[in-house]
Amino acid sequence: MSAGAPIRVGVTMGDPAGVGPEVIRAAITRLLPRSEHVSWVFYGSEEALGGLPGELRQPSAPFPERDAIEASAADLREGHIDAVVTGPVSKRCFQGDFPGHTELFQHRLGVPRVAMMMAGPRLKVVPITTHIPLREVATTLTSDDIVQTTRLVWQTMTHALEVPEPRLAIAGLNPHAGDGGLFGDEEARVFQPAIDILTQEGIPLGGPHSPDTVFHQALNGRFDCVLAGYHDQALIPFKLMHFSDGVNVTLGLPRPRTSPDHGPAYDIANQGIADPTSTLRAIEMACQLAGSPLCDEGFEQGDEGP
Amino acid sequence: MSAGAPIRVGVTMGDPAGVGPEVIRAAITRLLPRSEHVSWVFYGSEEALGGLPGELRQPSAPFPERDAIEASAADLREGHIDAVVTGPVSKRCFQGDFPGHTELFQHRLGVPRVAMMMAGPRLKVVPITTHIPLREVATTLTSDDIVQTTRLVWQTMTHALEVPEPRLAIAGLNPHAGDGGLFGDEEARVFQPAIDILTQEGIPLGGPHSPDTVFHQALNGRFDCVLAGYHDQALIPFKLMHFSDGVNVTLGLPRPRTSPDHGPAYDIANQGIADPTSTLRAIEMACQLAGSPLCDEGFEQGDEGP
Repeated sequence: MSAGAPIRVGVTMGDPAGVGPEVIRAAITRLLPRSEHVSWVFYGSEEALGGLPGELRQPSAPFPERDAIEASAADLREGHIDAVVTGPVSKRCFQGDFPGHTELFQHRLGVPRVAMMMAGPRLKVVPITTHIPLREVATTLTSDDIVQTTRLVWQTMTHALEVPEPRLAIAGLNPHAGDGGLFGDEEARVFQPAIDILTQEGIPLGGPHSPDTVFHQALNGRFDCVLAGYHDQALIPFKLMHFSDGVNVTLGLPRPRTSPDHGPAYDIANQGIADPTSTLRAIEMACQLAGSPLCDEGFEQGDEGP
Repeated sequence: MSAGAPIRVGVTMGDPAGVGPEVIRAAITRLLPRSEHVSWVFYGSEEALGGLPGELRQPSAPFPERDAIEASAADLREGHIDAVVTGPVSKRCFQGDFPGHTELFQHRLGVPRVAMMMAGPRLKVVPITTHIPLREVATTLTSDDIVQTTRLVWQTMTHALEVPEPRLAIAGLNPHAGDGGLFGDEEARVFQPAIDILTQEGIPLGGPHSPDTVFHQALNGRFDCVLAGYHDQALIPFKLMHFSDGVNVTLGLPRPRTSPDHGPAYDIANQGIADPTSTLRAIEMACQLAGSPLCDEGFEQGDEGP
């Protein structure tokens, strides 16, 4: 029943024309009864996030959503906040200098490698390559990528998420994980050497498993997290199970950054119908990763409910 | 309430050391109360399938499971049976002359092209390429493959499955379907020309859709079937939703062939624990595709139940 230690959590508004501001307002309102130990820092305009209980850092025009992200990244780097949750923006926000939030935070915080974990109540997945054409996956993915990304997953799960012995699995690249070399050799040539290195380091990584069964096995509790060789191998099963309550976690930063797993959804913005669940889960996850989990949801029973 | 017209349905035993015989026995026993109009033809040994209510065609040693398949293919070709359901075998069964049942039936029945539909109560998917390495997918998949396979899907759904205007969708090959060309050009270069041809033929094929959302949309009733560019793009979401009740349907044969969506599962054979659901659904689907659906499951109420 004890609340976590006091922490400061930053929240960026996202694109003010999208659903970001409203889902953040809804999520914060619902979380207030069980977040007394959190000091909120909101990065956004008065119109978007004004009136919420915390500090409001208003970005300057003419590009307020980008300024909000930059200010939060600077504060995260300097330790002025312990974690950050970013609201959804369009790709335009990064104007070609970064593919997205993940890479911006990696660069601004000066770390050599990050990875993206998609986390939901039933399934956690990590794509090792991300936004590259499918035709380049097999020639891009290296044993070193697998080793480095698995280390980040292991560190996050054993330390921040406090899973003492995480059961990690990796999916092969080819149908039936190549079926002994019949349909591709990456499992033997790229995956196995990485698995051997990790095993020597004390990081057991099972696989490479048949891609069409390993996610089902994870869903049924056999694995805590599945690493995938490419974007859709991870995202197809993840979005099937967690379309509304998935969280995007950037692994490898000195302090955590999370975000809801959806875009700005301009078509439904400001209609009061956007689902705040993913943002709520992203804030919960940020607090947990910062070492100060929110108290149990049971505390919310006097609340207006979902 | 009317039962279908009289038909003859063949069932091959699969590998006698696997779960095939027991799941077939269980499925047939459960289906008997609502299959009075079906004459069964069993292809298998006395030990595997003897005693079931129908004709038993015993294959000759020393390779009985392969002989059973060949006999059923000959009978299907000659019209001695109206549909066939094949029990699970190991890859060894085809000894390198065919990748599996699908290609054997294609060759024995002399048709130029077949496709594999994975059908479940909530999701139907069709991979356009199948057992090839991931690295070869982008260079193998052609506009013509998409056109030909979509025609087979359309024909089967409008005729045999009696869906008057099937809502078909196709997933792109790249993350976010290439995101306007940022991550690959196959959507514009390979998919769009195929979609244009099909549209002119009166076959509306939506897409190419973002792979990580289209299966979720299909699951929620927006599409009746999703075509996929490669094996795991189709099989990962399918097996996640239909691990126990999926059916494999060969499209493009003059008479239908279906099978359960699992292997011989030697490790659990003859223990009485194998789940017959997939085989039961495969038999139901074969009868439906042969134009003589079994009567409603409600008839089974006096049965011992699942």
